[in-house]
Amino acid sequence: MDLDEIRPIARRLARPHRVARGGKFRLKDHDPADTGELGAEDKPRAREALEIGKRALAELQDMLYAQDRWSVLLVFQAMDAAGKDGAIKHVMSGINPQGCQVYSFKAPSSEELDHDFLWRCMRALPERGRIGIFNRSYYEEVLVVKVHQEFLAAQRLPPAVVDKSIWDKRYRSIRGAERHLAQNGTLVLKFFLNVSRAEQKKRFLERIDEPTKNWKFSAADVEERGHWNAYMDAYQTMIRETASERAPWYVVPADNKWYTRIVVAAAIIDALASLELAYPTVSAKQKSVLQAARRALMAEKG
Amino acid sequence: MDLDEIRPIARRLARPHRVARGGKFRLKDHDPADTGELGAEDKPRAREALEIGKRALAELQDMLYAQDRWSVLLVFQAMDAAGKDGAIKHVMSGINPQGCQVYSFKAPSSEELDHDFLWRCMRALPERGRIGIFNRSYYEEVLVVKVHQEFLAAQRLPPAVVDKSIWDKRYRSIRGAERHLAQNGTLVLKFFLNVSRAEQKKRFLERIDEPTKNWKFSAADVEERGHWNAYMDAYQTMIRETASERAPWYVVPADNKWYTRIVVAAAIIDALASLELAYPTVSAKQKSVLQAARRALMAEKG
Repeated sequence: MDLDEIRPIARRLARPHRVARGGKFRLKDHDPADTGELGAEDKPRAREALEIGKRALAELQDMLYAQDRWSVLLVFQAMDAAGKDGAIKHVMSGINPQGCQVYSFKAPSSEELDHDFLWRCMRALPERGRIGIFNRSYYEEVLVVKVHQEFLAAQRLPPAVVDKSIWDKRYRSIRGAERHLAQNGTLVLKFFLNVSRAEQKKRFLERIDEPTKNWKFSAADVEERGHWNAYMDAYQTMIRETASERAPWYVVPADNKWYTRIVVAAAIIDALASLELAYPTVSAKQKSVLQAARRALMAEKG
Repeated sequence: MDLDEIRPIARRLARPHRVARGGKFRLKDHDPADTGELGAEDKPRAREALEIGKRALAELQDMLYAQDRWSVLLVFQAMDAAGKDGAIKHVMSGINPQGCQVYSFKAPSSEELDHDFLWRCMRALPERGRIGIFNRSYYEEVLVVKVHQEFLAAQRLPPAVVDKSIWDKRYRSIRGAERHLAQNGTLVLKFFLNVSRAEQKKRFLERIDEPTKNWKFSAADVEERGHWNAYMDAYQTMIRETASERAPWYVVPADNKWYTRIVVAAAIIDALASLELAYPTVSAKQKSVLQAARRALMAEKG
């Protein structure tokens, strides 16, 4: 299958989950168990399709790298156990690591806390020609920090800038930063892996009951479930405030990993295919340089 | 095939090319066209073996990441068109990009020139649990800078530290840095892709003659061929001075790409398998925390 055949399929898979106008976005219109036009019986076919998608991604990334014009930023946000790490691994592992970099943002260090909330992410942005993946991002600043406002105190902001409008100011900062990126040649795509509370519970129990998964589990994660509704409110507002044509959110159903992964792959393929990617061509002048180099090589002795 | 079966094969492939004691190393003992125990008729089998090797690497890297104890630094050095980019792409592209980062070091920026020659590479070292790949590295400082000593002037070193012993001091700095890394849990492997002058010519002509490869070609690369012998001297001395058990060089025959790639994969597998990688296990105390979390989950309402 070539890219021209793959693209419409990718678009059809990804578009229902794309949110490019925040306005009246309501999380409750998005079912975490949704599998679009596919049913459980399509699972094996979806696995094959993911392999085809991975090859298409590798091909697109090779052109992106060679062309060296655009950069691509993929932001992943989700509740614990929604499958961020698995999606990154299973969708992106066919890609040349030379053109792809993943940053996992953990709790900020003291140095990072001594800077504005965008700083640590902005310095980790992908170079031109590369795909950068943020596993968590500056969006944590309007998610976990909004749910646990005690974290704000640790950020040592001057009291004069901390008031009720702080979240609105943060959304505005984020919109401004993403507009700036888009206007300077970065394609920005954001993924919210939308897992249900019941499915998260099931996955936590697996991590507890299967010894090989124990290391992935943190008891603090269970506590965070207590704030589920506050988190869902924060996600919904975040998407309303920051979804745009230039930096859309994909609200990806995450109760079925096979579907999550194929939608993520499809969304990236659809967006990359919309850039005008091509291998660089050489000018007439460069061609004459090439021919001079050819003559020099042929004239070498021995 | 499981890791226990793959490891001895990997070792057998990689060991003939491993240089862990610099001493009397002579480049002329290493044939760029060598294919070890394999012949051209083994090429298709080598391709299959590379796929098996990539799966083994992905498995080892998954453990490395989960265990989060060791980091791995892979340094690639070579003449132009020796196949560094291709080796990185074809050997490493099965790996989860979340656990692998590639830095390609180009001509240093003014900021980088205002620091010591190790600085820009040291700040790009892989975190614990990750594989870092240096596509070129601080070794350029005893290769291109040694061949083109005018580059030294641009480094704005105080004249008092620039004397005839500068290269010896650089080798010593490198040995010291790599000892430090090894002693702090970084596995350091270095690859010199050893291409012949004739094969480089062939590949340059391909880049000139095939329009899709034009963008990879730079006319300056042809000029560098004029310094071939000076480069080979610099590589030989570099390997003599910096090969050690704790940071070995692999002098990989590079006239046949299929052989280069399988040797690189084999060397990494052999070295990773020698670490005691394992998924983390949990202590009795952690187990009771897990069980408490289990009870909390099961007691939830709704």
